[in-house]
Amino acid sequence: MRIDTVEKIKDLARGAVLLGTGGGGDPYVGQLLLQQEVREGRYPHVIEASELDDDALVVCVAGIGAPTVLVEHLQGRDVCKHLLDTMESHLGRKVDAIVPAEVGGLNSIIPLALSAQVGLPVVDADGMGRAFPHLEMVTYSVYGCRTCPMVLANEFGDTVIVDSTTTDRKAEDIARVVCGQLGAMIYGMLYPMSGADVKSKAILGSLSYSLEIGRGIRLARTEYDDPFDGLLNILHQPDIDRHARVLFDGKIVNIKRETKDGWHFGHVEMCGLTDSSQTFEIELQNEYLVARQNGRMVCIVPDLIATLDRETAEPLTGEALKYGQRLKVVGLAANPMMRRDECLNVFGPKAFGIDNGFIPLEDLQIDD
Amino acid sequence: MRIDTVEKIKDLARGAVLLGTGGGGDPYVGQLLLQQEVREGRYPHVIEASELDDDALVVCVAGIGAPTVLVEHLQGRDVCKHLLDTMESHLGRKVDAIVPAEVGGLNSIIPLALSAQVGLPVVDADGMGRAFPHLEMVTYSVYGCRTCPMVLANEFGDTVIVDSTTTDRKAEDIARVVCGQLGAMIYGMLYPMSGADVKSKAILGSLSYSLEIGRGIRLARTEYDDPFDGLLNILHQPDIDRHARVLFDGKIVNIKRETKDGWHFGHVEMCGLTDSSQTFEIELQNEYLVARQNGRMVCIVPDLIATLDRETAEPLTGEALKYGQRLKVVGLAANPMMRRDECLNVFGPKAFGIDNGFIPLEDLQIDD
Repeated sequence: MRIDTVEKIKDLARGAVLLGTGGGGDPYVGQLLLQQEVREGRYPHVIEASELDDDALVVCVAGIGAPTVLVEHLQGRDVCKHLLDTMESHLGRKVDAIVPAEVGGLNSIIPLALSAQVGLPVVDADGMGRAFPHLEMVTYSVYGCRTCPMVLANEFGDTVIVDSTTTDRKAEDIARVVCGQLGAMIYGMLYPMSGADVKSKAILGSLSYSLEIGRGIRLARTEYDDPFDGLLNILHQPDIDRHARVLFDGKIVNIKRETKDGWHFGHVEMCGLTDSSQTFEIELQNEYLVARQNGRMVCIVPDLIATLDRETAEPLTGEALKYGQRLKVVGLAANPMMRRDECLNVFGPKAFGIDNGFIPLEDLQIDD
Repeated sequence: MRIDTVEKIKDLARGAVLLGTGGGGDPYVGQLLLQQEVREGRYPHVIEASELDDDALVVCVAGIGAPTVLVEHLQGRDVCKHLLDTMESHLGRKVDAIVPAEVGGLNSIIPLALSAQVGLPVVDADGMGRAFPHLEMVTYSVYGCRTCPMVLANEFGDTVIVDSTTTDRKAEDIARVVCGQLGAMIYGMLYPMSGADVKSKAILGSLSYSLEIGRGIRLARTEYDDPFDGLLNILHQPDIDRHARVLFDGKIVNIKRETKDGWHFGHVEMCGLTDSSQTFEIELQNEYLVARQNGRMVCIVPDLIATLDRETAEPLTGEALKYGQRLKVVGLAANPMMRRDECLNVFGPKAFGIDNGFIPLEDLQIDD
C-alpha cells in the first residue's frame, strides 16, 4: 500500500478518526507531520504483517497524553526519531519495522511519518482496531508481549526509559505521571516485539481499513444523496464480521469536559433534531466508552462509537465536539478478537468502572 | 578508613543522623543492610577523593522518598546491585567508585553497603554535608554535573532510567512522581561524574566527620556529666570553620505531619522544661528547614538543625520525634561551600518558600 499523496493521507486520517472512537489524537497534527515528509519526496512504506521475518524487531510509536493538550501543542519530527535512536541504543539492536499501537487521527499517522523519515516499513495492523486511553489496553499485552522497555520523550529532550515493570498497567501508571511532568503531551516508543508476535497478536489490516473508510466517505459525498448510505455499505458487512448502525441523529445540547491526570474525561448530551424529548449521551475518557439512548445502553466498549458531522459524514474527535453541533452517531462492532474474554478483562466495561457487562452492538435494541 | 565493626557502623550512622538534620533516612534500615555484609566478612572500602583517577566514573546511590514510608518498608540488598548493573549497562562502562549524595542515617550507609557487596570503593565525601529533600540540591549540580542518566528502582523490579532532562529540577520532578507510582520509597543511582568532578565539587570528609561525631557522642556519655559538652567540643571548632550551639532545651508539645507527594512535611512545637512560656518550633520537609525561638529565627537552611535526646545526646530523625519527648536542639553552620550565593540560589531559604534571607547561625541571636 502506497501513501504517496496528500489526498491519501487525508483519507487515511479521516478513516482513522472514525475508528479512533473519539480519541486517538487530532488528525491535523498527524497530517502536518506526514505531509511534510511526502512533500519532500519521502513516503511511508506499508507492509503486511505476513511480510515480517519472525525474528524481526518491531516497535510501536505513539503520542501519549490528553488530546485536549495535543491540539495546542504541535511537536516537531525530531522527537520520534530521538525515540528510535534511544530505543535502538538501549536494546543494542536495530529496529526492523514499526507497528501502530492504536488507530487514530494522530496515532495511525505518527508511525507513517516516522517510516517516511527513517525508511523503516510500517505494518498494516495495530493493537486494538480502535483507540483506548491506556497503554496496556492492546492485544499485544493481552497475549503476552510487554510494554517495556518503553522510551518516553518530549520535544525539549527530556527522555525517560521505563526499562521493566511488574505489570503493563504499572508501565501505564508511570507513563501517565511522567507525561504530567513533561508537559501533558509526549511521545512514546513501546512494545518491542518479534515479527512472529505481530503476526499472531495484532489486529491486522487496520491502516488499509482506515484508508478504505476515509476514501469511502469522500466518494460518498458525491455519489450518494446521504453520504452515510455509502459509509454504512463499507462499515456494515456481516459476512466479513463488520457490523455497524446509526445510533442517533441529533444535536449536542451539553458537553462537560475535564482534563485530569493526563486524560480528557467528558460527557456529551444530545437530543433529537425535531423531537427534543429523545435523548442521547456518550461518556468518554479520551475515547468514547458507552452510549445511551433515552437512558438505555446502545453501544459499549470495546465496541466503537463514532461521532460524525450529519451533513458531510466527517468523523470528529471528542475534543472537536461543540455545543449545538449536529451529528450522526454510528456504532461499530469491535474486531472479533477484541471481544474475547481475556480481552474484555483488560478493556471491557469493568476496566473503565462501568457497571454493565459487555453486550455486542448487534444484540442491543435501539429506538428508531 | 575501615568500617569493619558493628560499633563503627553504629557510630557512623549516629553521626550521619545528626548531620542529616532530621532527614537522610532512618539509621536502623541502613545499619541492617551494612551489618549483614560486615557479618559475612565483606567490608566497605572508603577512600579519599584525592585517590580517585580524574577520569574515574563515580556515581551516587541513595534512597528516595518519604522517610515515614521507609521505616515501614525494609528493602533487600538486591535493589542497589540492580541499579549498578543497569547503570553500567546503560552507560556501557564499569563504575569505578561510589560517592554519597547526602549525609544521613540511610543515605550515608547505603553506599557503604553497596561497596561491601560489590567491592567498589566509597569516596569520603558527599554533595551537601547534610541532607536535603530534592535531588538537585547538591554541590555536584550547582557546579555543573548532571543528575541524569539516573536509574530508579523498587524491590519488585520496576525500573526506570531517566536518561536526560533539561534541568536537574526536572529530573527531581520525574523521580518524585515515579517514586509515588513505585511505592513511595525507591532507590536511585544518579550523578554519574568523573573523579575530577568529585575532587572539585564534593563536600569532602563527610563520612569520617559522621564517624567522628557518632563516636564522640558514644564516648561523651561516659566521659562527661552532660554528653552535650563532649559533643559540642567536636561540633564547635571555629578555627576549622565548625560552628555549633545548643538552640533549645525543652519538650515537644505538638507535632503536625503530612506525607504528601513523596515527602514528609511537618511542624514541631516545643516549650521549655520549666518555663512553658518559652517556645520553639521547627519546620520540616523531610529535613529541618528553619527553627524559631519565641517566634524569632535562630537557624535557617542550609545551616543544620539537629534534634537529640537530652539525656543521651542520641540524634533523632524527624519521623522519630514524638509528643512529650525531651530534646536538645543543636544548630550547626553548613560547610562554607554550601553558603556561597550560587548554592543558596538552589537550596537556600527561598528554594523552600521561606521568606527570610539566609543568615549564618553564628550571626543570629538566641535567648538563654
